[in-house]
Amino acid sequence: MRITVLAGGIGGARFLRGLKALLASEHSGSSITVIGNTGDDIWVHGLRVCPDLDTVMYTLGGGISDERGWGREGETFTVKDELASYGVEPGWFGLGDKDIATHLVRTQSLAAGYTLTDVTTALCDHWQPGVRLLPMSDDRAETHVIVERPDDGSAPDGTPLRSAIHFQEWWIRYRAALPTHGFTVIGIDTARPGPDVIKAISTADVVLLPPSNPVVSIGTILQVPGIAAAVRATHAPVVGVSPIVGGAPVRGMADACLAAIGVETSAFAVAEHYGARSSGGLIDAWLVDSSDADCVEDVNRLGIDCRAVPAMMTDVDATARLAAECLAAAETWRARP
Amino acid sequence: MRITVLAGGIGGARFLRGLKALLASEHSGSSITVIGNTGDDIWVHGLRVCPDLDTVMYTLGGGISDERGWGREGETFTVKDELASYGVEPGWFGLGDKDIATHLVRTQSLAAGYTLTDVTTALCDHWQPGVRLLPMSDDRAETHVIVERPDDGSAPDGTPLRSAIHFQEWWIRYRAALPTHGFTVIGIDTARPGPDVIKAISTADVVLLPPSNPVVSIGTILQVPGIAAAVRATHAPVVGVSPIVGGAPVRGMADACLAAIGVETSAFAVAEHYGARSSGGLIDAWLVDSSDADCVEDVNRLGIDCRAVPAMMTDVDATARLAAECLAAAETWRARP
Repeated sequence: MRITVLAGGIGGARFLRGLKALLASEHSGSSITVIGNTGDDIWVHGLRVCPDLDTVMYTLGGGISDERGWGREGETFTVKDELASYGVEPGWFGLGDKDIATHLVRTQSLAAGYTLTDVTTALCDHWQPGVRLLPMSDDRAETHVIVERPDDGSAPDGTPLRSAIHFQEWWIRYRAALPTHGFTVIGIDTARPGPDVIKAISTADVVLLPPSNPVVSIGTILQVPGIAAAVRATHAPVVGVSPIVGGAPVRGMADACLAAIGVETSAFAVAEHYGARSSGGLIDAWLVDSSDADCVEDVNRLGIDCRAVPAMMTDVDATARLAAECLAAAETWRARP
Repeated sequence: MRITVLAGGIGGARFLRGLKALLASEHSGSSITVIGNTGDDIWVHGLRVCPDLDTVMYTLGGGISDERGWGREGETFTVKDELASYGVEPGWFGLGDKDIATHLVRTQSLAAGYTLTDVTTALCDHWQPGVRLLPMSDDRAETHVIVERPDDGSAPDGTPLRSAIHFQEWWIRYRAALPTHGFTVIGIDTARPGPDVIKAISTADVVLLPPSNPVVSIGTILQVPGIAAAVRATHAPVVGVSPIVGGAPVRGMADACLAAIGVETSAFAVAEHYGARSSGGLIDAWLVDSSDADCVEDVNRLGIDCRAVPAMMTDVDATARLAAECLAAAETWRARP
């Protein structure tokens, strides 16, 4: 079974850890291709940092800090402290020493002319994540956020002025706590899907949308021209897992992202946002947490097969069971009349 | 008094520490300009590393590892270890975590279009070395070494084949222990002296050659077109200190460098190599260690005012006294009939 997963950072990586565990025990011979979000990528101190790709790679390769969910276990921040002593910006980005080695290898390889896909494959040769990790695009497509910053001032008529700041600055420096008016992915119009990305969707047996951020992770991947169309057209069932449980994100600040694009923070609203493939949308089935069972009928009415299951990824076993529910939903869709 | 010093790494930096101490106590209002060797510079993992500039900056700025003589006090090597786990070369270069911050700032600034002189000034704004530190050139001029490596093989007639390897590889990886046939400074023909370098020599009251490596440190600086001519032409006395004591380098592997260019490892031979300014050479006075007093007459016969003094830089006070001897020799030259 060929499974293709569109993944952001922590939520996607943890889901993948459970999916891998499931396949190891029950579906040997299966393969996982991960299409990773690179909209969060940032150049910091001259280094190309790919937070979501690295979170997937480190999590599945056994190097992640489980406590933080991002970056390396046993990490130190000597370089960051020294950079701060030089007074160079940005000081708010958490660049760990071990992590920097990854960024140095990546940056130098990109400078030598390798694509991000090539470099990611090379890094994964070391990490052995057990999945094929494909950047959504080798082209630069960076998520920026339209905000009102305290020091931006106002227009003569009193209207607050707006800035577009890098997603990481919004997320890390401002903790998403600025008046926010949407997202713009710089470069997305001309970004091309990475090699094999479209093929991985078209030839998959199952396509999964894990509980990653539906706006700035999966939403960004889907904005790469051609990717959403491939998801709509694939013969495989497309199954999503709600990142919203009980009206709040399980982790992260998906609520702030959803609010910025005018979508309610609820398991139902995210399903509606993705839409039913049968009506030109993106998903066939939607898994919500048992505590959100009351939205199942509403989601079903959208033309999406909705199931309420234990969706909290509390440990690898629980996550493997969630992944099994995804595959079961896919099987049901495939067997539909 | 304006003092201009042509300096390499450890020897030059330690001499400068003594000179600074001397000026602080006895010649207030004096200024020191250091023309630093950049022939040892290397790009490592995409970072521009300037070992000699940094050794001067860290030593005079209070950040040096006194034990090693290079790099930062309390340094860690997390990034280096991680890079090694990726298997990327070179693994032999001692890239410390604190040090990397300097290289990141430098590399990014160079990429933004600043010159090495600009960047060095900016880094020194932080380190406050108390001297004006000028790279010998903003152009790339890198010392390579002509060697026979064990795996280079031989020509059909049995002649060993030769390679040109970067100075740092020769020095650090091979500890200068390869059959060596000389040095070539790639880019030197078209390298221009950095801004103010020629002026610093021409308008100095004293020019000093500290006990730096006469071949790959001071020798490289002097190869930048225009610098040797400026030293020959300056109105200031030019005073050198022998880096060779008792037929051996006080530190480092100057003997291997001298042997490679056919110069004996002795205080006399280095003086002869520099030559008397009165005969078209580079120095007016030459200080040797007291233990080398027996060469004083021979050096004098070259037309160089030679003095035997305690030349071991055992601590800052001893080094300040050595610097005072340099200024005394300069004064004598200036007061000559």
